[in-house]
Amino acid sequence: MSVLVVGSVALDSVETPYGKIDDALGGSATFFSAAASQFTDVNVVAVVGDDFPHEQLDFLKNRKVNFDGLIKKPGKTFRWGGKYHLDMNHRETLFTHLNVFEDFDPELPDHYKETPYLFLANIQPELQLKVLQQMKRPQLVILDTMNFWIEGTPDALRKVLKHVNILIINDSEAKELSGETNIFTGAKKIQEMGPKILVIKKGEHGAVMIDNGEYFFAPAYPVKDLKDPTGAGDTFAGGFVGYLAKSAYVCQKNLRRAIIYGSTLASFCCEKFSLNRLEEINKDDIEKRYLEFLEMMKVE
Amino acid sequence: MSVLVVGSVALDSVETPYGKIDDALGGSATFFSAAASQFTDVNVVAVVGDDFPHEQLDFLKNRKVNFDGLIKKPGKTFRWGGKYHLDMNHRETLFTHLNVFEDFDPELPDHYKETPYLFLANIQPELQLKVLQQMKRPQLVILDTMNFWIEGTPDALRKVLKHVNILIINDSEAKELSGETNIFTGAKKIQEMGPKILVIKKGEHGAVMIDNGEYFFAPAYPVKDLKDPTGAGDTFAGGFVGYLAKSAYVCQKNLRRAIIYGSTLASFCCEKFSLNRLEEINKDDIEKRYLEFLEMMKVE
Repeated sequence: MSVLVVGSVALDSVETPYGKIDDALGGSATFFSAAASQFTDVNVVAVVGDDFPHEQLDFLKNRKVNFDGLIKKPGKTFRWGGKYHLDMNHRETLFTHLNVFEDFDPELPDHYKETPYLFLANIQPELQLKVLQQMKRPQLVILDTMNFWIEGTPDALRKVLKHVNILIINDSEAKELSGETNIFTGAKKIQEMGPKILVIKKGEHGAVMIDNGEYFFAPAYPVKDLKDPTGAGDTFAGGFVGYLAKSAYVCQKNLRRAIIYGSTLASFCCEKFSLNRLEEINKDDIEKRYLEFLEMMKVE
Repeated sequence: MSVLVVGSVALDSVETPYGKIDDALGGSATFFSAAASQFTDVNVVAVVGDDFPHEQLDFLKNRKVNFDGLIKKPGKTFRWGGKYHLDMNHRETLFTHLNVFEDFDPELPDHYKETPYLFLANIQPELQLKVLQQMKRPQLVILDTMNFWIEGTPDALRKVLKHVNILIINDSEAKELSGETNIFTGAKKIQEMGPKILVIKKGEHGAVMIDNGEYFFAPAYPVKDLKDPTGAGDTFAGGFVGYLAKSAYVCQKNLRRAIIYGSTLASFCCEKFSLNRLEEINKDDIEKRYLEFLEMMKVE
């Protein structure tokens, strides 16, 4: 199965205790594609300005990521700047310049419309809806969102959620969306909004998947050389959705494996700035770490 | 294998959003014994005052917990009072009256001295040392400690640590003891102090075991009816050490199972006040939840 992703392609300026980059490749659709393309074909819907260095996407094109849906508009590309301190669980946003993203009006190329799996990255719910409406009966819809939309555009978000099968969200966002302090109680309320399967990310504490009454707990991979966590969430989603799309069948067994693949890809993402580590790794690297990961959870 | 525990037998007054108890059975040695005795024989070393309601220990005596080492002294029993708010990860200590515990001088009955497994519950390192010195070559020494001793009596704690095989500690304590902000980096420093195996508890986020370079991650059981978390840490230790003692062989396989048994027992502990739930459960209840627990971690 192939996957369509709508999200951002951006230029990031990031500072961590281990270094600094300016105007490096970033954006949710980019990190997602770099991970998902290890498993399946990816169609990207996004927008960039006329200053965008397209050659930086070459390694993704070589992995059969299709950029026919990447619109080029006059103006500047979306830029984000952030800073991480020693505790890299928290970051400081230094600036967000939406630029050409501000009036992004996603229009899907015809050959994108029958893509079976759809990932709606963390962007305005109105844009997520616009993409949904252009799709011809996607088999599986996965959504990422954040506090900004939960608070700012709750009605539009609720509309999108009705069409979503799997929601990827972090623990504080799950609490905010449900209005509950306990994520397990909150999960029931969110499931009533649409998505039957929740993947709740807990940063360094891993993730929990809630599918009806069934729970699955996964740790986070203990990254030794943490350099820059930017994009780890989108990379997790890319590994998760990519593996699910490859396995082509949504069941607990595949969902659980998908979470470990997602965490595996996210762990690589953090080892270098921007997409530098995601560009390097191959299927063998991923498989080796995936198996190492399982070993850390195994009880005989 | 049987287990010797030195710790407190106390009377707790606890308030949570779900109720309130006064002068109920508590103490680290008590919670530990209630859990460990599901797997093996336990010898208790502790002290109580002449106001202590001994009949409350009857259910433990029926499980072959030996109280020959429970000294009765004139005066009042150790009392602790605490309050939990809605977020039960944090508690407020209302009072700590050491009473007869203040000049507790543990003296082991002769038939205790060859107990093969020794658990040093979270008490003054000087007392832990006194017990260690009276033992005849214990096969395995497991220790629990806390910030209070890490800060207050670091030298005595270091002396004890040299004799410890397995250290059970929470994440903030591991950071404090090692002086490192990352628990994985910190673990190496702690291992140089003595204990080769670390079990680092992360509350609602489960636990991680570090044994040389090998990691094992276990989630916390999602307790639905959380009433009172008092004693959960000692109960975890009881299930962990009790299962290890029963299995009689310290290897990764048994250590991992022991962590899940520890977490299983701890989850029961939180479902009622004091030791009320631990008194009720039987081996079938434990086995059922243990298997349910494994199911939540399994990747096929």
